[in-house]
Amino acid sequence: MIIILQPGATDEQIRDIVSRIKSLGLGAMVSRGVHRTIVGVIGEGDKLRVKPLAAIPFVEKVVPIMSPYKLASREFRPEDTIVEVKGVRFGGDEVTVIAGPCAVENRDMLFQIASAVKAAGASALRGGAFKPRTSPYSFQGLGEEGLKYLRECGDELGMPIVTEVMDTRLIPLVEKYADVLQIGARNMQNFNLLTEVGKTGKPILLKRGMSATVKDLLLSAEYILSQGNNNVILCERGIRTFEDSTRNTVDISAVAVIQHASHLPVIVDPSHGTGRRDLILPVSRAAIAAGANGLMVEVHMCPQEALCDGEQALLPEDFEQLMRDVRRIAEVLGKRVAQLN
Amino acid sequence: MIIILQPGATDEQIRDIVSRIKSLGLGAMVSRGVHRTIVGVIGEGDKLRVKPLAAIPFVEKVVPIMSPYKLASREFRPEDTIVEVKGVRFGGDEVTVIAGPCAVENRDMLFQIASAVKAAGASALRGGAFKPRTSPYSFQGLGEEGLKYLRECGDELGMPIVTEVMDTRLIPLVEKYADVLQIGARNMQNFNLLTEVGKTGKPILLKRGMSATVKDLLLSAEYILSQGNNNVILCERGIRTFEDSTRNTVDISAVAVIQHASHLPVIVDPSHGTGRRDLILPVSRAAIAAGANGLMVEVHMCPQEALCDGEQALLPEDFEQLMRDVRRIAEVLGKRVAQLN
Amino acid sequence: MIIILQPGATDEQIRDIVSRIKSLGLGAMVSRGVHRTIVGVIGEGDKLRVKPLAAIPFVEKVVPIMSPYKLASREFRPEDTIVEVKGVRFGGDEVTVIAGPCAVENRDMLFQIASAVKAAGASALRGGAFKPRTSPYSFQGLGEEGLKYLRECGDELGMPIVTEVMDTRLIPLVEKYADVLQIGARNMQNFNLLTEVGKTGKPILLKRGMSATVKDLLLSAEYILSQGNNNVILCERGIRTFEDSTRNTVDISAVAVIQHASHLPVIVDPSHGTGRRDLILPVSRAAIAAGANGLMVEVHMCPQEALCDGEQALLPEDFEQLMRDVRRIAEVLGKRVAQLN
Amino acid sequence: MIIILQPGATDEQIRDIVSRIKSLGLGAMVSRGVHRTIVGVIGEGDKLRVKPLAAIPFVEKVVPIMSPYKLASREFRPEDTIVEVKGVRFGGDEVTVIAGPCAVENRDMLFQIASAVKAAGASALRGGAFKPRTSPYSFQGLGEEGLKYLRECGDELGMPIVTEVMDTRLIPLVEKYADVLQIGARNMQNFNLLTEVGKTGKPILLKRGMSATVKDLLLSAEYILSQGNNNVILCERGIRTFEDSTRNTVDISAVAVIQHASHLPVIVDPSHGTGRRDLILPVSRAAIAAGANGLMVEVHMCPQEALCDGEQALLPEDFEQLMRDVRRIAEVLGKRVAQLN
Repeated sequence: MIIILQPGATDEQIRDIVSRIKSLGLGAMVSRGVHRTIVGVIGEGDKLRVKPLAAIPFVEKVVPIMSPYKLASREFRPEDTIVEVKGVRFGGDEVTVIAGPCAVENRDMLFQIASAVKAAGASALRGGAFKPRTSPYSFQGLGEEGLKYLRECGDELGMPIVTEVMDTRLIPLVEKYADVLQIGARNMQNFNLLTEVGKTGKPILLKRGMSATVKDLLLSAEYILSQGNNNVILCERGIRTFEDSTRNTVDISAVAVIQHASHLPVIVDPSHGTGRRDLILPVSRAAIAAGANGLMVEVHMCPQEALCDGEQALLPEDFEQLMRDVRRIAEVLGKRVAQLN
Repeated sequence: MIIILQPGATDEQIRDIVSRIKSLGLGAMVSRGVHRTIVGVIGEGDKLRVKPLAAIPFVEKVVPIMSPYKLASREFRPEDTIVEVKGVRFGGDEVTVIAGPCAVENRDMLFQIASAVKAAGASALRGGAFKPRTSPYSFQGLGEEGLKYLRECGDELGMPIVTEVMDTRLIPLVEKYADVLQIGARNMQNFNLLTEVGKTGKPILLKRGMSATVKDLLLSAEYILSQGNNNVILCERGIRTFEDSTRNTVDISAVAVIQHASHLPVIVDPSHGTGRRDLILPVSRAAIAAGANGLMVEVHMCPQEALCDGEQALLPEDFEQLMRDVRRIAEVLGKRVAQLN
Repeated sequence: MIIILQPGATDEQIRDIVSRIKSLGLGAMVSRGVHRTIVGVIGEGDKLRVKPLAAIPFVEKVVPIMSPYKLASREFRPEDTIVEVKGVRFGGDEVTVIAGPCAVENRDMLFQIASAVKAAGASALRGGAFKPRTSPYSFQGLGEEGLKYLRECGDELGMPIVTEVMDTRLIPLVEKYADVLQIGARNMQNFNLLTEVGKTGKPILLKRGMSATVKDLLLSAEYILSQGNNNVILCERGIRTFEDSTRNTVDISAVAVIQHASHLPVIVDPSHGTGRRDLILPVSRAAIAAGANGLMVEVHMCPQEALCDGEQALLPEDFEQLMRDVRRIAEVLGKRVAQLN
Repeated sequence: MIIILQPGATDEQIRDIVSRIKSLGLGAMVSRGVHRTIVGVIGEGDKLRVKPLAAIPFVEKVVPIMSPYKLASREFRPEDTIVEVKGVRFGGDEVTVIAGPCAVENRDMLFQIASAVKAAGASALRGGAFKPRTSPYSFQGLGEEGLKYLRECGDELGMPIVTEVMDTRLIPLVEKYADVLQIGARNMQNFNLLTEVGKTGKPILLKRGMSATVKDLLLSAEYILSQGNNNVILCERGIRTFEDSTRNTVDISAVAVIQHASHLPVIVDPSHGTGRRDLILPVSRAAIAAGANGLMVEVHMCPQEALCDGEQALLPEDFEQLMRDVRRIAEVLGKRVAQLN
C-alpha cells in the first residue's frame, strides 16, 4: 500500500502518519518527491486495517498494491482449481456445458428438455425452482415441486443438477435436492447468502453481478472460500452498459482477466448475457475461444410458451449446432468437451 | 402493449398472434403499415402474461405502453405519499435529514455523533449494526450489540432509528430495535428480503442498486407495496459509471424522474453517492434543490479512526454548515426542514 | 412510428395530432386503449420530419418502428458487402487481418514490423502518422513523413495501407498515400469528417466510439454511404464501462448484432479494446469465433520502446501464434484467412 | 510516478529499470516490500516520456501521482479563472446563464427567443448554425445565414453570442461572427479542432464528451490552454450510462470535482443533460446549488415546431421561473446572477 500525501504536508503530519502505520505493526518508508511526499507501507499485515488512513485530511490517495482477495488469487494457488460434481469436472482441459430451461415449468417439459440437451452433449442440467423476477407479478417458480422434478430428472439421466438459491432460509431445502447451488447475479453481494452457501461445502456457481467488477466478483468468491469451501465456479453473464441492442453486454475479456487473476474455473452464460436467441450461438463460440471453461445455456422446446425468458432460449436443434461448434473450437485450444459417463 | 411484427409476416401468422391475444381475454387491433404490421393489445389484463409473445419467431419487438409497476405509480395514487415515523415525516413539504455513523462502533461514539447531528437539525439517526462489506476481511458490524446501542440512543434523544437488514433470518431481530428498516443497494433485488420486510408493516428505506434503472427501483418498491406496506422511502445513492473520480455517480435527475413517475418520497445519500467528503456539501445542496425529500448523511467525530468508510464521513461542524445551507435551499422550494418535537 | 399519448388526451388533441401527421403526407391510425390512446403513423415519409411530435405537451412517447439508417441496413441490401482494397477483401468468407505499429516511429522499425506481420499472415498494414492523443504532451505522430514511410513500405511488400485521418483539412494529404482511411473512435461523430471522407470514394475503416451504441455507429456509417461511398468497414474496439481491469470493454455481441442489422463487414480491434497485451490473443480468437470479418492488431518489435501504447502491442512471435489460432477458428466457421497475392 | 514490479522481479531487472529512469534525467527510489518491489520516480521531468515503462514485461502497474494536465490544474493556478466576454463574466461570484434555441431556424424566431431570454435574465445567447446530428437525414443548420442572424441579434440586444464550430475549416467563418466558440460533446477529443480554436484566442466553451472522465475533459482543455488561450469555460452536459429514463445522466458531482481540480469556470447544460423538458428546472436548480458558474439552456417559443431537440426546450415562461429560482439559490451560495449592462 502506498499513501500519497497532499502537497504541503508538514513534517509533523508525516511523522504522525508514520507512527500510525508503525502502531499497526507495519513498516513505513517515506519518499519525498518534488511535488508530493509518498509513504510506502511494508509488511504482512492485513492492509484493510489501515484503510481509515484515506480519511486523514492531508492524505490525497491510498493506492493498494496487493489484490484485496487472497484465497481466490493465483498467487495463493498457482494451479487451476478443478471443481468436480458427480464425476463432471469444471476447469482444466475440459469444456463443460450446463443447459436446461430458465424455469422448471412442469415435469414433462423438464424431462423432454433434459433428454434433448443430454443427447446433444450437455453434462449438467439447469432449471430454476425459485426465480428472482424484477416484477412481483411475474411467474416466481414452482418452489419445492420444481426441485423434486429436477432431482428426479437428474437421477434418471445421470446429470448433476444446478439450481438457484436466493434466501438463507431456503438453503437446507435446496441443498437437499441440488448438486450445485447457484448464486444469481442479483445476489452476488448478498454476503450472508455467500457465507451460508460456503458452509454447505457444496459446489457453488457464482454469477457476476450486473455492476460488479472482476475484483468485486473475486471478493464475493472469497466469502465462500473463506468458509473452507473451494468448489466455486464463476460465471460471466453480462454487465450493464449504455448499449441497448442487447439485454446486457457480455464482457468477453473478463474470462481471461479472471483466469489471469484467479485459479477458479469460469464459464459464460450467453442467454442472460445477450437476452437474444440469435446471439447465443456466436457468443457461445466466442466464450470458448476466449478460453472459458464452459457455458450455461437456456434451452426450451417451445420458447413462445415459456413462462420465463423465452426470448433468450434456444431450440434443441439450435443447441445441437452450438455443441458441434463448441467441440471444434475447444479442440483448437487443446481442450475437449466434458462427457457424462 | 404494441407488438411489432417482422417484415414479411404472413396473414396466417397475424391471425395466429391475434388469436393468442384474444385467448388471454384481451383485445387486438391490427395496423398494416408500408413496412411493418403492428398489433395493439387492448385491455385490463396483466400484460406480463403475454410476455412470451416476444419469443414468437416472427415478432420483432414488443413495446410496453404502461409502466410495469402499479401500486408505486403516480397513476395509481396521484397525491404524494407521506411516510411518518414516530412523528417524523418523509415527503410533502418537509425536508428530512437522517444522519449518523456508517457503522455503530461503540456506545460512546454513537451517543456523541447522535447528539451532534440532532443539535444541528437531523431528525433521524442512522447507523449500521450489520454491514455489507465487499471484502470478508473488513469490519462486519457489532450485530445485536449495535442494535441495542441504537435503540437506547434513539430513545434517549427522541430520534427514530434507521438501520440495515440484510438477511430474511434477521428481520425479527432488527425489527425489534429499529424504526425504519433499510434495504441496501446490494440487496435492492433480493426479492425474498423485499417481500419479508413488506410483511413487517414497518417503514422501509429502499436504496437504489448500483446498476438499477429507476424502473427497476420502482419494481422493487412494488414488491414491498404489494405486501400491503405503503411506507416506502426511496433513496438515490449513485450508480456505477465509467467516471472514476467519485465512488459512484449521483443521478440527480432521478429525483425528479421518480417524483414524476411515483408518489413515494425520495431522499439522496451523498456519502455513498460520491465517496468523497469534499463533495458531500455541494451534492447535498444539489439534492435538495432538485426537490429531494431529504438526505441521508454519514457523520463521524473522527473520520480517520472510523472502522468503515471514514473517507466519506463529515465532521459535525461540516454537518452544521450542511444543515444551514439545506434550510435555505428548502425555503427557495417552499419547503421546510423537518423538526423533532 | 407510434405515438403514445398521455392519459386524458382529449378528442381535440387527438384530432390535432392526426391533422399534423396528415399535413406531412402520412397516414394516421388512432387506437384507443383502456389507459392510453396511441396513434400509428403510416407511410413512406421520412419519419424524422415528424420528430418534433415528441415535443407536443400531451405526447408521452414516440416509438420508432423502422431503424433510422437506411443505406447501412440489411433491409436495403440483404447480401453482405465485400470491400476490396488492392485485391484484399473484407467481408464474406474471408477473415482479414490488419496489423502494424500503433504509430509510425521511424522507417526501419516500420519495415521490420511490416515484414514480420506479413510473414505471419497479415494482409494489410496499419500505422498512425497523425495520432489522436488524450494529452497534448504525448507524441503526436510523424505527420507526412510517416505517411511516406507507410506508402513506401506498402508498395515494397504489396500490402494495402490503413492510416487515420483526423481533420478535414488533411484528407487530401492522407488520401494521397493511404489505401484505407481510418476514422478513429474519437471522431466517429465528427460528421463533417465523415461526409468528406465519404466523398473521396476510398475504403473507410470506421471505428465505434467509446460511448456509441451500434445504432449510432450505423448512423455514422450512413453519413459515409450517403455520399455514394459503399466501401465502409466497421470496427468494434471496446466501449467505456465501469470495469477497470481493461482499458475498454470489448462488446463481443456487437459483431453479430451488426451483421444482423447491416450488410457491412465488421472487424475487431483487441489492442485498443483491452489495452492489455495478455488479452489480445484470447479476445482475437473470440472475435473470429463470434463471426468477425477480421482483426486489427498492434504489433511492435520492442513494446517497451514504443512511443505510443506499447502496453497493448504484441511481439511478432505472439502475433504468429495469434494467426495460427485465427486460421483454425476461421475454418470452424467455414471461412479462410485472406491471403496476399 | 510509482512503478510496481511483478512478484519475483530480479535484481537485474530492478537495476535495469532504475537505469532507464536515470537516463531520462529523473531520480529513482527503490522500496522492497514483502510481496512487491516498488520504484518511485522523482523529478520535474515530463512523466509521459516514461510511459513506455508500462510495457516492460516485469512491470505490473504504473501509478501516476501528478495529474496529467498542468495549465488546467489548480496547482498551476490556485485562484479562479474568470472568463470575460464583452463584459459578461463566467466564474467567481457570478452565475451566468446562456440561453436560446437549439438551432437557429429563422431570423424572427431567433429575435423573439433572444428578447424573451434577455428579459428573463439570460446574459448570453446560444444558437446552432452548424448542427452535429446523429443522422445525416436530420436538419443540419442554416450555416452562415444562421451566423449572420446570431450576430445581428446579439448586436441589437447587446448579448454575446455562443455558437458551435465543428470543423477546422470553418473556424475563420465562425470566428468572424461569434463571441464564444463552442466545442460540442462529440468533438471534445477532436484534438486538431481544440488546437485550432486555441489559436484564435477567443473564449471557448468546451463541452464534456459523453464518455469522457473529468480527467479527459481537463486534458482536452489543456490542448486549448497550451496554445496560450486561457479563456476556457467547461460544460457538464451528461454522460452515457445504462439509465434510460433520461437522454444522458447529469454528473452533478463533476461540478465540484472540476472546481477542486481546476481553476476554470464550469457550467451545466440541463437540456442535453436530461433530454426532457420537465427535468430542466430541477436540474438547473441542482447545478447552481452544487456550485456551477452558470447554465446553458435551450428555449423555444413553440417546441413542437422546433427543427431540432424540441422535446428538451423550455417555453419562455418556464425559463422565467427557472431564472427566479436560480437567483435565489445563487444567493444561498453568496453569488449573484450576472447582469447585462
